[in-house]
Order: sequence, then structure tokens, then C-alpha cells
Amino acid sequence: MDGYSLNMETVSLNEEGTALRIIDQTLLPYETRIIELKETEDIWEAIYLLKVRGAPAIGVAAAIGIYLAASRIDTDGRDEFLRQFIKKKDYLNSARPTAVNLSWALERMERVVTSDPDSTVDELKSLLKEEALKIKDEDTQVCRRIGENALSLLKPGYGLLTHCNAGQLATTRYGTATSAMYLGHERGYGFRIYCDETRPLLQGARLTAYELKSAGMDVTLSCDNMVASLMRQGMINAVLVGCDRVAANGDVANKIGTSVVATVAARYNVPFYVCAPTSTIDPSTPTGNDIVIEQRPGEEVTEMWYEKRMAPDGVKVYNPAFDITDNELVSAIITEREIIRAPYDFR
Amino acid sequence: MDGYSLNMETVSLNEEGTALRIIDQTLLPYETRIIELKETEDIWEAIYLLKVRGAPAIGVAAAIGIYLAASRIDTDGRDEFLRQFIKKKDYLNSARPTAVNLSWALERMERVVTSDPDSTVDELKSLLKEEALKIKDEDTQVCRRIGENALSLLKPGYGLLTHCNAGQLATTRYGTATSAMYLGHERGYGFRIYCDETRPLLQGARLTAYELKSAGMDVTLSCDNMVASLMRQGMINAVLVGCDRVAANGDVANKIGTSVVATVAARYNVPFYVCAPTSTIDPSTPTGNDIVIEQRPGEEVTEMWYEKRMAPDGVKVYNPAFDITDNELVSAIITEREIIRAPYDFR
Repeated sequence: MDGYSLNMETVSLNEEGTALRIIDQTLLPYETRIIELKETEDIWEAIYLLKVRGAPAIGVAAAIGIYLAASRIDTDGRDEFLRQFIKKKDYLNSARPTAVNLSWALERMERVVTSDPDSTVDELKSLLKEEALKIKDEDTQVCRRIGENALSLLKPGYGLLTHCNAGQLATTRYGTATSAMYLGHERGYGFRIYCDETRPLLQGARLTAYELKSAGMDVTLSCDNMVASLMRQGMINAVLVGCDRVAANGDVANKIGTSVVATVAARYNVPFYVCAPTSTIDPSTPTGNDIVIEQRPGEEVTEMWYEKRMAPDGVKVYNPAFDITDNELVSAIITEREIIRAPYDFR
Repeated sequence: MDGYSLNMETVSLNEEGTALRIIDQTLLPYETRIIELKETEDIWEAIYLLKVRGAPAIGVAAAIGIYLAASRIDTDGRDEFLRQFIKKKDYLNSARPTAVNLSWALERMERVVTSDPDSTVDELKSLLKEEALKIKDEDTQVCRRIGENALSLLKPGYGLLTHCNAGQLATTRYGTATSAMYLGHERGYGFRIYCDETRPLLQGARLTAYELKSAGMDVTLSCDNMVASLMRQGMINAVLVGCDRVAANGDVANKIGTSVVATVAARYNVPFYVCAPTSTIDPSTPTGNDIVIEQRPGEEVTEMWYEKRMAPDGVKVYNPAFDITDNELVSAIITEREIIRAPYDFR
């Protein structure tokens, strides 16, 4: 785990202001390799290949990426600058079309240029750098505030379960679901952390267990199907998960398996908390049934991460990337602003 | 999948009566290799290394194994024969001390010898062969009757979910949880079968999906954490699982993750059926809390089946082999004799 520490930002602009600095997450947990990317094509590829992943982290990477692209546009003409800027922006936006934060961050960067008719190209470049760093810093602040709010619901010594990676590696710092764990760790809460491995891509085993252990926490990994065993024995006092989208009625879309954890938590009266930046609450989606669930290749289940195939040839595979947790299973939705409880109504 | 068919017994005596014939389950689903074992040491190793696995199949393998060992004892003296028989029996019994059916089958074979004071050694050898084949045939009959009883609860076109492998590969034929699937398939029920992959050792992916697909069924594999997603969409009409032990109050010990499936099934009003030979009901164990749960090595979660390690070095792992499903989550316990419903009382 050399090279990774709690004090490091997952996504940043290097000190010289010339490159995007990220941890190559496809190599974790075998190798912690920090990479610096200058070319727009390399940044596009890093997002596409999940070298940087997690909706907030992708947004920040894109903001820094479009700043770097803009900084090299070699013209003094505003119109030509804008034309080339839009072209680079559309290109970066195509890396992962489903990640909302990607387009959100790029739109925000575009507004810096389009809403300012007076600045010179050099001034615009400077303003874009400021905006990119602001987006980065805001993400850190949002995560930290979610952590403070979540921590107010937890007690020292708690056993905390999380699913997938809504961690520091998915944001610039702290993570969403993990933020209270980091803050509690700093303050000597002595949490016992349990990570679901999160099949099929094992983000819990490869990323969450890795980053929390690197931070010095008491981390235990278990398979997704062990959650009832853990809770039946009283080992879990609260569940903290991130989310990809919250519908107007409080239904939550998040990594596949989240609703299994929520169902089991309800049976054992374990609070189930969803950590959600306000930006993930989507009033325009009435319920979870209105959220389209991405289906991913069956090979992720039958072959990925495996040297040998682990299922029979030709078997059909059910492999949704997300599931819906019904609002009645959600004890609270924790944003950077407040702790929201049922009945949920975000219309 | 060459070499495997529904008509084949998982465990049998070869036609010449000279060897134990099994499928080497450690090679599935990559290779279907039928092996014939004559030496007692090889049979011991096959049980120890899980080449043959599943409590009923282990019992039958041990019965045939001790017959083969007895058939080669070179003496006409009854006392000497009995002395050598007990030695071989104790040796085979040490292969997997926790599998109840292993000692149960060996004790039954021993009684053939000890309860008959008049037969010659040659006659005893003949009686032992009969008893081994009877144990095998009884297992097939028990599985088939469980299947008939279970099938009476199912309708054509049902989506059926099973967890782990309580299949033909765990018995001589039909399996317990899968028996109704085989019988329904023969009778054109058109079931849609869903197999949990069953982490960490993937018996659902490697064995159940394999054997049901080999039999020509409509089989879909999914990760253990996808069960709520499947049920929320109404794709599952009933769950069928096997069991390792049923306590007097109806609590069920079975493969880790079983109680997660049961909890989710209860939420979505999907019947949860436990298929249990009468021999697995244990009146002497009052409740599930009185069943000791085997904890297995963490490497099964972090490394096994993987070429590359998939979790950070030194991370703690929670890896129980079984869990307890509370009786209130069990819709019915299906034995070879009857369909038993709550309140359960096996005292």
C-alpha cells in the first residue's frame, strides 16, 4: 500500500498546474501507482477505462481535464477559443455518457467561458483553472459535511457496514459513505468497519477495504451473502452506503446488492443510511421504477478477475449494475446540508 | 460438458464391482472427468479434497469405499476380518469428520458385520456389497420423493431460485433442492431456474449451473447480491434450498447466504422451501443458536479461484461456511415423507 495515504487527494491538478494527477484504480489493490496525465486523449481514456471512477471523482477529473485542454489552445481569438473548447468538452463528455457528474462538471466549466463576454483568452484560461479547483474543493467540502452529519448519528465502538466503494477513491477526499468513518477514525471513535466485497467487480474488496485499511482502520471484509450472518449476531450497528440517484419519493438507485443489505438491515433493526450529495437527488424522477438500470456483460460474473472460467459455457447471466432500494427501507438520507427522514418528498 | 448426463449417478460402484466411480468435482465446470478409485487411500483423499462432496454423496462414497476395502481383506477368520474392517472404517471416517452422513453410512456398514454372528467372511463381504448399494439406492429414492413433494407446490412456468449446490452432484441422483427441477423438466414444466453463484466457493456457478444446464434446463446465473433485484421484478416464484441441519424448532443451518435469500424472499412474499431428508432433522439440537458454525480460511474470500489477489494484504476476513435461517422465514420443510409447515416442532 505504499504511496497511498489519507492525506492525498484522489483527483487533483499537479503542483505545476500542468497535469491531472490520479491513482490508477485498475491496479488496486496490487499496486498503488500515481499517474499524471497531460493529453486530453489520455484523460478521456483514464475515465473510459475506470482508472478514475466514482461519479464525484469523474466530475473533478473532467473539470481539470477540460482546463488542461483549454490552457493549450493556441489562439488569442475568443471565438476560435470557444470553438476549440466546445470540441474538447464534447470529446471528454463522451468518455462515460451515463455518469451525470461528468456532464454536470463540463457544463459548469463551459459557463465560465460563455457567461463572460469581456475577458481575454488568457483571462478565461485563468478563470477555468479557478473553476476546476473550486469544483474539486467543493467536492471535498460536500463529502466532509456529509461525514459530519452522518457522524452525529453514530456512537464510538459501532460496527459499520458499507457496500461497494463510496469512498475517498470515488471522490476527491473522504468519500460519501466512508466520510464519517474517516472523521470518526480521526476522533478515536474506534469503529469496526465491515466491507461487502461487492460482486461482480469487487469494489468493496479491492477499493474500500484497501483505502480504509490504508487509513489504519479496523476493517473486515466479507462476502455479500454474509450480511445476515453478521447482523443476526449483532455485529453491525449501522449501514452507510452511497448512491447514484435518489428519486423524488426517496427510492435509491445504488450498486447492485444495496437493497439486499437494506432488506436484511430492516429485519434486524439496523439503521440503513444513504449518504447523498444534494446533486444526486433527482426531483424529476418520480420513483425508483422510473430509473433505467444498466445491464452489464455476463462475463463480469463468469470470467472477470478470474484466470479460469468459473461457470459453464453458454450459461445465461443476470448482471444488473444497480438495484433499487424502496424508500421504506431507508432510515435516513444524509446530504451535506441535512439529515432527511421519511416520508421523503423531493418534488 | 462431455461425459455428464442426467442419467448418470454421481457416486456408484463400477460394473465389475471393483471400484468407486465418481465425477471429480474439483475440475468442474472446466472438465468432466470420471474417475474410478480402488485403493482405500485414494477414496479417503477424494473425500478429503472434495472430489466427491455433498453430505449424501459422501455417505454413499464411504459405504462403497468400505465395501471395497472389506472385499480385499485376505482372511477367513471372522475376528481378524472384523479387526481389519474397523481399522479401515476409522480411517475413512477421518476424511471429513464434520460430515454427518459419512459416519452415519460407515456405522450402518459396520452393523452388517457386527449384527451377524453366523455368516462366513465371504458371506459378510457379499452382505456389505448389498448394504452399500442399498444405501446408494435409498439416497436416490429419498431425493426423488423430496422432488415429488416439492413439485406438488410448484406450477409450470415458475421462476425457481436455488442457492449453493444441493443438486445431483451432492447426492447420487436428482439432488434435494434440484429434484423438483429435474422432475419438472422431464414433465415439461418449463421452469426458469436461477442459480446464486454462492461466494466464496462458487458452488452455484461451478456446480449447480453446470448440472442443470447439462440437463437442458433454462438456467440463469446471478451473483448472490442480485436476489432482491430479481424478486422485486417478480422473476422468482419460489426458492428451493437444501440444508445441513434442521433444529428442533425448525431453524435451518445451510450454506452461507441462505438466510439472506430467505429474508429477501419474505419481503417479496416468495415462498422459501427447505428440502431436507428426514436424516438431516436433528431433534437433539433445540434451536439454530445451538448449531456451531464452521469458520473457514479468509483466503477463500481473498484469493481462491483468483490468479491475482483481490483484496489488500492483511485485511481481516469474515468467512463463515454456513448461516442460520430463522424458522419464521421458512415457508415449508420438504422431506421424502411429507411437507411440514410452521409451527415446527421436531422434539
